[in-house]
Amino acid sequence: MIKGNMVIGQSGGPTAAINASLAGVIKEALDSKFEGKILGMVNGIEGLLKEKFTDLGETFSGEGNLEKLIHTPSAYLGSCRYKMPKPDKDSSVYDKVFEIFEKHNIRYFFYIGGNDSMDTVYRLSEYAKTKDYEIYIMGIPKTIDNDLAMTDHCPGYGSAAKFVATAVKEMHRDTNVYDLESVLIVEVMGRNAGWLTAASALAKDDTCSSPDLIYLPEVPFSMEKFISDVKKCLAEKKVVLVAISEGIKDENGIYVCESTASGAVDNFGHKYLSGSGKVLENAVREKIGVKARAVELNVFQRCASHLQSKTDVEEALANGGAAFREALSGTTGKMMGYVRCGDYEIKFEAMDISKIANEEKMVPAEYINSEGNGVTDEFIKYARPLIIGESYPVYENGMPCHLILSK
Amino acid sequence: MIKGNMVIGQSGGPTAAINASLAGVIKEALDSKFEGKILGMVNGIEGLLKEKFTDLGETFSGEGNLEKLIHTPSAYLGSCRYKMPKPDKDSSVYDKVFEIFEKHNIRYFFYIGGNDSMDTVYRLSEYAKTKDYEIYIMGIPKTIDNDLAMTDHCPGYGSAAKFVATAVKEMHRDTNVYDLESVLIVEVMGRNAGWLTAASALAKDDTCSSPDLIYLPEVPFSMEKFISDVKKCLAEKKVVLVAISEGIKDENGIYVCESTASGAVDNFGHKYLSGSGKVLENAVREKIGVKARAVELNVFQRCASHLQSKTDVEEALANGGAAFREALSGTTGKMMGYVRCGDYEIKFEAMDISKIANEEKMVPAEYINSEGNGVTDEFIKYARPLIIGESYPVYENGMPCHLILSK
Repeated sequence: MIKGNMVIGQSGGPTAAINASLAGVIKEALDSKFEGKILGMVNGIEGLLKEKFTDLGETFSGEGNLEKLIHTPSAYLGSCRYKMPKPDKDSSVYDKVFEIFEKHNIRYFFYIGGNDSMDTVYRLSEYAKTKDYEIYIMGIPKTIDNDLAMTDHCPGYGSAAKFVATAVKEMHRDTNVYDLESVLIVEVMGRNAGWLTAASALAKDDTCSSPDLIYLPEVPFSMEKFISDVKKCLAEKKVVLVAISEGIKDENGIYVCESTASGAVDNFGHKYLSGSGKVLENAVREKIGVKARAVELNVFQRCASHLQSKTDVEEALANGGAAFREALSGTTGKMMGYVRCGDYEIKFEAMDISKIANEEKMVPAEYINSEGNGVTDEFIKYARPLIIGESYPVYENGMPCHLILSK
Repeated sequence: MIKGNMVIGQSGGPTAAINASLAGVIKEALDSKFEGKILGMVNGIEGLLKEKFTDLGETFSGEGNLEKLIHTPSAYLGSCRYKMPKPDKDSSVYDKVFEIFEKHNIRYFFYIGGNDSMDTVYRLSEYAKTKDYEIYIMGIPKTIDNDLAMTDHCPGYGSAAKFVATAVKEMHRDTNVYDLESVLIVEVMGRNAGWLTAASALAKDDTCSSPDLIYLPEVPFSMEKFISDVKKCLAEKKVVLVAISEGIKDENGIYVCESTASGAVDNFGHKYLSGSGKVLENAVREKIGVKARAVELNVFQRCASHLQSKTDVEEALANGGAAFREALSGTTGKMMGYVRCGDYEIKFEAMDISKIANEEKMVPAEYINSEGNGVTDEFIKYARPLIIGESYPVYENGMPCHLILSK
């Protein structure tokens, strides 16, 4: 174990559990014999490049703050959507990063994030091979999209899944209150992978017959089939609840919302999607003539830390700790992933980052029903354990307590 | 106390606490010496007219169901939006109701609902005076809008307020994650009264500087002023969070969303509002040129029973019980309202229904700041006690347990 400091960053879109991963790394570092500084980069790699650090060891050496951190949504350290250039095209950024590593004697680098963040981890660890500087670089998964390769599932997904399913179950009751025909369309986040939308199926039980139909980006969307599916459901029940991914697209790959979207793209060139639900709402009204309403769960679904999955939070915490131990034992260029054993037990394993960076894991065919409008029992068996248990924040004055970075 | 049966109905839009009011009436009736049947009308007065009853005494005589009922969102008995005609224009509906009362020997009538439902209570109790039939008719308040006259506040408001403020606090964290200028607009329910939107202010504390601006329907909305307000805020901080009521309108009474709304109206002639947030989102993008996003909390804000205010639920339960005792002691034509005593203690009082029916209580001037873009400390002092404490449902298989009416 080389003497020196460590730095942790958070990147990509917020989740309700990303701070539990951070808390896991910090806790393990504090409990261990690690003697260096525990630094946080403020706003991810962007902050590192500006040398914007915060001393996490200092902030969390006292009592209570770690517990508050776990229940704070979004990224405590701030995030970024910085795309590292290809090193063969522009290596100046990499040289700058390693200059900063050296200047601050940073020997352990942890980056919590999704696909794009794992790309950063991959590129940095590859570049490290060309440098005569000992550093251990680890990725820690995070995404409500659950679309990282190799790992059984991703920290943050379980909490978002629990929230989406709970929202669907509650809206099912709401929408069944009148003795009237109606269609409720719930739009869930998910650009290419439908994992979170699929999780709406967890709402179904003896007291909840919703969702009736589920459309994922993995299955080409047909408006005709959709209208016919809804009509079939309406023949059997008054209220039909449909869950859709924001990213549903037709067989030509055209997003359903494309006609209404602003056309704006983010730093990674991803289109900003919104409005698929509204398109379907209008279609139901026009083509079937019943009351229709679209509800977009929007950013709220990824930051609702007032209802976290206990399983998700506990796993994220333990995984953060495992990533710390792994790096300290000399592992680099890996992501700390989840392996499912037996009925439901999770073990942590350092996984090859080159097989994860920029890959997207889609919902596999065996989890989607043959009609392409729902999920299978196999999916439920996969997803159910991830939402078990409730982890609640402490409340003061009627409001959940959060921990924020003092600036 | 006249021998006979009682009937309870629920009406209007769902809330997270309306079933706690129902549970309060049932519990008190079961615990009392009342010997008649405890009937529920399925889908409010509409169901009564079709003689669709359910035996609540039977369903709730066992263990556990009352607890489940309290944490079930929306109206357990189903709801309706039935507008009673004026009796001098058409008394046939009234005669039909009293025929059914007589047929089922109904002597106690409880109706849980908002303004329109209190109108039903008022008209029925007035009509009862012309009939030679002994019956006691009581209203029980319910509305997330908090706009019923006379009562200090309404059951259901505290839970919705807690949810809205929590959502705002969590979205504040989410939206502050990037080091970028942006404006988040949160659209809250409230057609004419801004109580629920005002409650977003409860999110503000040492760790949350949002919401920055609040616009209520009580204050004529000016787009120019709004843009100038947002610009002022952006000069001081990167991320601006704005809470607006769906029903904000300009000085001529034209709804901000009117240009985009479908124009559809409900049975009471209320316009279906949606889209004010989107209108402002576009205005911010066009006129200020920063990233903007509108989030509509939609139906979810009124049915989020996974996070109820303990104060709200306990008051609703006790108020239901008080309404039962009041009717049994011979009171009729009243609504069981809340009176605030001292610092914060609630007493229940039978209030004159004629002064409540069809009235709307707006947010008073002393609760709105002089700029018309925020609330005062007096409002916080009024609203804070209503959101204190958390009441959580029991979860099974990771999902909240609900109780549904078997059909």
